[in-house]
Amino acid sequence: MPINFHIPKHHEIYPVKGVKIGIASAGIKTEGKKDITVFYFSEHTTVAGVFTTNRFCAAPVQICKQRLASHAAIRALLINTGNANAGTGEQGIQDALATSAVLANTLHLNENQVLPFSTGVILEPLPTDKIKKAIPDAVMHFAENEWFNAAYSIMTTDTVPKIASRQLIIDDKTVTITGISKGAGMIRPNMATMLGFIATDAHIAQPLLEKMTTAIANQSFNRITVDGDTSTNDSFIIAATGQSGVNVEEGTKTFDVIQAALTDIARELAQKIIRDAEGATKFITITVEQAKNSDEALKVAYAIAHSPLVKTAFFASDPNLGRILAAIGYAGIADLDTQTLSLYLGDVLVASNGGRHPTYQEEQGQAVMKEEEITVRVVLYRGEVTETVYTCDFSYDYVRINADYRT
Amino acid sequence: MPINFHIPKHHEIYPVKGVKIGIASAGIKTEGKKDITVFYFSEHTTVAGVFTTNRFCAAPVQICKQRLASHAAIRALLINTGNANAGTGEQGIQDALATSAVLANTLHLNENQVLPFSTGVILEPLPTDKIKKAIPDAVMHFAENEWFNAAYSIMTTDTVPKIASRQLIIDDKTVTITGISKGAGMIRPNMATMLGFIATDAHIAQPLLEKMTTAIANQSFNRITVDGDTSTNDSFIIAATGQSGVNVEEGTKTFDVIQAALTDIARELAQKIIRDAEGATKFITITVEQAKNSDEALKVAYAIAHSPLVKTAFFASDPNLGRILAAIGYAGIADLDTQTLSLYLGDVLVASNGGRHPTYQEEQGQAVMKEEEITVRVVLYRGEVTETVYTCDFSYDYVRINADYRT
Repeated sequence: MPINFHIPKHHEIYPVKGVKIGIASAGIKTEGKKDITVFYFSEHTTVAGVFTTNRFCAAPVQICKQRLASHAAIRALLINTGNANAGTGEQGIQDALATSAVLANTLHLNENQVLPFSTGVILEPLPTDKIKKAIPDAVMHFAENEWFNAAYSIMTTDTVPKIASRQLIIDDKTVTITGISKGAGMIRPNMATMLGFIATDAHIAQPLLEKMTTAIANQSFNRITVDGDTSTNDSFIIAATGQSGVNVEEGTKTFDVIQAALTDIARELAQKIIRDAEGATKFITITVEQAKNSDEALKVAYAIAHSPLVKTAFFASDPNLGRILAAIGYAGIADLDTQTLSLYLGDVLVASNGGRHPTYQEEQGQAVMKEEEITVRVVLYRGEVTETVYTCDFSYDYVRINADYRT
Repeated sequence: MPINFHIPKHHEIYPVKGVKIGIASAGIKTEGKKDITVFYFSEHTTVAGVFTTNRFCAAPVQICKQRLASHAAIRALLINTGNANAGTGEQGIQDALATSAVLANTLHLNENQVLPFSTGVILEPLPTDKIKKAIPDAVMHFAENEWFNAAYSIMTTDTVPKIASRQLIIDDKTVTITGISKGAGMIRPNMATMLGFIATDAHIAQPLLEKMTTAIANQSFNRITVDGDTSTNDSFIIAATGQSGVNVEEGTKTFDVIQAALTDIARELAQKIIRDAEGATKFITITVEQAKNSDEALKVAYAIAHSPLVKTAFFASDPNLGRILAAIGYAGIADLDTQTLSLYLGDVLVASNGGRHPTYQEEQGQAVMKEEEITVRVVLYRGEVTETVYTCDFSYDYVRINADYRT
C-alpha cells in the first residue's frame, strides 16, 4: 500500500503547450499493455537531463548523454517499458540508435534530436522490431492531454501512476508545469529504473535549463533512496517549450518562482517513488542541519537512510536511538564530535551530548515512530549547510518482493 | 541455524601458556548467566589491538586505545556482556575506569595495565557495582583451560560459541594459538559488537605485534560484513605471552608460519561470526581480483556485499546477474571499464564484455546459487591486487530479528 499517496484528479493535470504525447502497445513484455510513450516538443524547446552515475549505464543513457552534450535540438523522447536495454553491450547501442532513428524519420527530425529511454528487464536484447512497429501508432495518437496515460504507460512494477501538475500566473500569462515519474528509486535494478519527465511552457535558454535541472535533481530525484542500489537507467529530464511566452532569466523574480515550482513538482514526483516503494510502510524524511558542507550532510543522511538496522527499527516503530547514533558515527566524518550533536525524532530532542537527552522519555520517541510519516533531524553544529533525504523503512515485504522477483 | 558451523571438541582447544581465564556471574542482564570474563597474562606479554572506526565509540574502546597508545604493559582484560557502556558520555568513561581499577587492584597491577571491553545494550549506564562484586569471583576461578567457558561467557545473541585453536611445532618447541570471538559482525549495534581475542605463547615484540595485528585484522575481522553497520564497540586483541620460548622476528620462516597461523585462526573466528549471523542462510565469499589497489577492490567487494538486492537474490538462490553487475557499476570507481571485467559465480563465467557471457546458461548459475557456500569472483583486469570479503544473505529472519529486537 503506497503511503499517503495522492493521485490527482484528471482536471488537476494541465497539458503543457508545445508538448504532444503518443502512447502505443508494442507487446514487449505483456500483450496489450501500453509500453511505448513518445513525447514530441514544439520547435525551439530546450531540454536538459541528469542521469545515473552507475558505470554500467544502459545503452539509451549513453546515447542521451552524448546527444545532450552535442547540443542537438532535442524534439522527441522515446520511452519503452519491459526491457531496460542494459548490460547489452554494443548491440544495445545499435538497437537504441535504430529505434530512435525510426521515430526521427517518422517525425522528420535528425536522428540525434530524439532521446531514448528504456526500463524493464536487463541483460536481454531490446525487441527492436516490436518497438519500430509500434512507433507510427504512438505518433498517430499524438495529443496534448495524454499525461495521465503517459504516467500509466511508463509504469513497470509501480502500483500507482506518479503525476504532478501546477499552473502559475506570471505577468498575466499562465505557465504550466506538468511531470510524471516511475520506479521505486534504486530498488529495482532489474525491472529497473527511476524515470522522471517534466515539461513546462516557460522559455528557458539551454545553458540556464541545464544548470536548473542539476540543481532541481539535487533537491528531488538525487535525494531519494530505498536501498542504496543505483540503477543502470535512472534518468531525469526537463523540457521547456517556451509556448507560454514567459521568459525565465537568472536573477529575476520569475526565475525564483519557476525554479521553486519546478523543484516542488520534481520533489513531489520523487517522493511519490518512495511512497510507492516495495514493501514500504513509512515515509521518512532525514534532515541534517548545520553541517560544514553538503558532502558531510549527505554522508550522515545517507548513513541513516541506508542502515538496514535503522530501517528495520522504523518498520517496527521502535525508537532505537542506538542504531541511529551508530549510523551517524560511521558516516565517515573523521573529525565528528559526537559529544555536541543533537538528534530529533519529529519535534522530540532524543539525544544530545553523546547520549540520550536527560528529559527524553521513550514513550515520546515511540509516539513519533508510530506515525506513517517520520522526520529524523540531526544537528551537527559545524556549519550552515542543510541537506534533506527521503527514504522508507525495510519490511518483510521488501525481502519477499525482491527474493521472489524473478521466480 | 548457523551455516556449516564447526564447534571443536574440548580436546581440540589447547590452553595457551601464560594465559589464565576467570569467569563469573554479575547478573548484569540475566541472573545466573556468566557475564564477566577476565584474561590474565604472564609478565612480559605483549598485547596489540584494532578497534571500531565508529566516531560514537564506546567508553571502553576509548580507554583501550589510550592505554595501548601509552605503551602500558597490559596484563589483563576485563570483558562484560549485557551492557555496552556506549553512548554513556563522561560517566561511561568513569565507570570503565572504576571497574578496571578494581581488577587492577585485585591483581596488584597498575590501573592502566587492564583493558576493558563491554558488549550489550547501549545508552544504559554500566552497572558498576555488580561488576565490581563479581571480579574477585572471576579471579578466584582463574584456570588455563577455561577457553571454552570464555567463548560461552562473551556470547550475547550468538547462538553458538566461537572458538578456534591450533598448535605448531617450531624448532622442536610447541607454539599454541587459541582464540574466541562473538557477535554477528556489525549487525547488532544494540546487543552490539564484534569481539575477538587471540592469545599465543610465542614471543612477539610489541612493535611487531602491532604491525601483525593490523595486517591480520585486514584479512579477517575487517573483511566481514553483514549489513554494513559498524558497531560502537568492535575490538580485536592479540596477546603474545612468550612462554613457549619461540621468538618471532620479521623476515624469518618462523614469522611467516606464525603470521599465517594467526591469520588462519582470526579468519576462522571472523567467518564464524558470519556463519552465525542473524537470519543468514548462505555464507558468501566475494573476491575481487586484478584491481589497481586494495581500496578499489574493497569498494567493489563491499558494494556487492552490502546491496540488499544482491543479498535478497542470494536468499532466493536467484542467479540475478543484473543486480551484481549494477552493484559493481555503482561501487565508485570513476574510470571502471564495464566492457572488460569478468564475473564468476563459483567456477562459472557468467558475465564478460559488459553483459551475459555467450556460453552461460542460467541453470549453471542456478546450481551455484543453491549451495550454502557461494563464491562470487570479479576480475577487473586493472592491476594485481586481490581482496576478499565474507558476508551472508538477507532473509525474512533478518527483518524479523531486527524489527523484534527490543519489543
